[in-house]
Amino acid sequence: MKDAPEMLIPTYDDVLAAEARITPYIHRTPVLTSSYFNDLTGAELFFKCENFQKAGAFKVRGASNAVFGLSDAMAAKGVATHSSGNHALSLSYAAGRRGIPCHVVMPRTAPQAKKDAVRGYGGIITECEPSTSSREAVFAEVQAKTGAEFVHPYNDPRVIAGQGTCSKELTAQVEGLDAVIAPIGGGGMISGTCLTLSTFAPQVKIYAAEPEQADDACRSFKAGHIIADDAPNTVADGLKVPLKELTWHFVSNHVTDILTASEEEIIDAMKLIWKRMKIVMEPSSAVPLATILKNRDVFAGKRVGVIITGGNVDLDALPWIKA
Amino acid sequence: MKDAPEMLIPTYDDVLAAEARITPYIHRTPVLTSSYFNDLTGAELFFKCENFQKAGAFKVRGASNAVFGLSDAMAAKGVATHSSGNHALSLSYAAGRRGIPCHVVMPRTAPQAKKDAVRGYGGIITECEPSTSSREAVFAEVQAKTGAEFVHPYNDPRVIAGQGTCSKELTAQVEGLDAVIAPIGGGGMISGTCLTLSTFAPQVKIYAAEPEQADDACRSFKAGHIIADDAPNTVADGLKVPLKELTWHFVSNHVTDILTASEEEIIDAMKLIWKRMKIVMEPSSAVPLATILKNRDVFAGKRVGVIITGGNVDLDALPWIKA
Repeated sequence: MKDAPEMLIPTYDDVLAAEARITPYIHRTPVLTSSYFNDLTGAELFFKCENFQKAGAFKVRGASNAVFGLSDAMAAKGVATHSSGNHALSLSYAAGRRGIPCHVVMPRTAPQAKKDAVRGYGGIITECEPSTSSREAVFAEVQAKTGAEFVHPYNDPRVIAGQGTCSKELTAQVEGLDAVIAPIGGGGMISGTCLTLSTFAPQVKIYAAEPEQADDACRSFKAGHIIADDAPNTVADGLKVPLKELTWHFVSNHVTDILTASEEEIIDAMKLIWKRMKIVMEPSSAVPLATILKNRDVFAGKRVGVIITGGNVDLDALPWIKA
Repeated sequence: MKDAPEMLIPTYDDVLAAEARITPYIHRTPVLTSSYFNDLTGAELFFKCENFQKAGAFKVRGASNAVFGLSDAMAAKGVATHSSGNHALSLSYAAGRRGIPCHVVMPRTAPQAKKDAVRGYGGIITECEPSTSSREAVFAEVQAKTGAEFVHPYNDPRVIAGQGTCSKELTAQVEGLDAVIAPIGGGGMISGTCLTLSTFAPQVKIYAAEPEQADDACRSFKAGHIIADDAPNTVADGLKVPLKELTWHFVSNHVTDILTASEEEIIDAMKLIWKRMKIVMEPSSAVPLATILKNRDVFAGKRVGVIITGGNVDLDALPWIKA
């Protein structure tokens, strides 16, 4: 890693090291195609299905790289995070495979299904009050007590290098890609994609896709500095978090454009993917297709990798079904 | 085909001819595995994903074999059927690929979504009243007017030979299978499976899976003759139809056992497959897993092919969500 004054920026060598490290613990996910969506968009779309990934999302790549990169002494103390989403599941899974504890700080008000899922992967939950101050205080206590290594969901060079293995696989599976598009929340997947493609396949353009209702990355991109929104609301609940320094570095340097879609467009695209491709994926994963459908001119005639980031969705509360 | 006095029984050569004929028009569907379901059942399960098939179900194999096996003179008059489910979609798709008309007789009361789906694949709908007598009268009219070739959804040697290509693919994709299990309604898929495996891999046991609430095939199997129920009701709506002579021939000669599952077991298995494997499939396709889960001793320690027959499901009316 290059040692910058303010942060450790991962390099392509870190992606290669991550790949060697995590291969035994993750799936090489398939790439699906659909003549229906090719006809609809005028592009050739290649869907990289991380919804089929271990623990149900690409996040297991970065989490596994962090967990298996620890020295034995550090690993013995475990890992910790305060995500309650896919990162918590993935970190719990990876820690379980290494046989070390994973501590997850979650608000006591989090849905029981999310708590059950984390515990299902072996995570140890410590509950906090639903406020940032309580979360930070409880997390500090857990760390002080256990010495566990904090693994941030995205603003961590180990995590970004792990996510970079996804587009490395994709370019090996599909020749001659013109572009890759992935959803953007905190920017971990997009940063890993930038890291890999800017070195390994710099001719491939990188697009990020974001909900209109949580378009802080898009506005950051246009403004030239990080803009963080306070608690945006979107059905694409994996994409509510803001960019941080490390991910901003990659986004600002390597992304061609950030496109947005409305809630309705996201839900329609999600349902259409379920209906036509017969795959279960999260609302966040539908944002790229939603933006492709409304930006036909950008992608028509191109070979486009579309990263389906995850498949962990509440089957009892699908967004197109009114309760 | 062997010319029996009462019926034409397809042979394995017909499967090979079907394979050569339909390969350009269908997908070689993937086989998925799940460490979760292996742990849960104690078996090694290999899910043959016909939900990813063209037109969303295995039925396109038999329909394509029938359509592309017609002489040019016969084909010019088109094909016809009175199914309103996957067979109608598949026949419409295959006819479209050959550039010939496909006539579908459907009750005027059929759900608009089903009519739209058939029309979406190019089928030409003639509506009848929702009664057997009206259906038969209208169908006879359509045939008389058009001269279209009737393709039965399952009691047709061309259709059975086409369905037989599925287990041929499966045995090429997975070595050393001990058993294959598929849902049974009219018995087209099971018959094709029997036809192929009894010749090509006779050591593989064949199990059929059926809803308790539509267990006419199971009772036929035990009684030694066809028992047809009048309008059984089950969430597995592809499995309501009875066995006919041709499919009874295969079921009675080559099936090891027919296992059943309750509505609740089917719905639970369906939801669990969606949740853990991230695939969209029909209730009918969940019946095999439901029976494996309740007959652990039969399958534990075995390598079992599980045919996921289709993925055409109404996403607005999922059976685990109460309206």
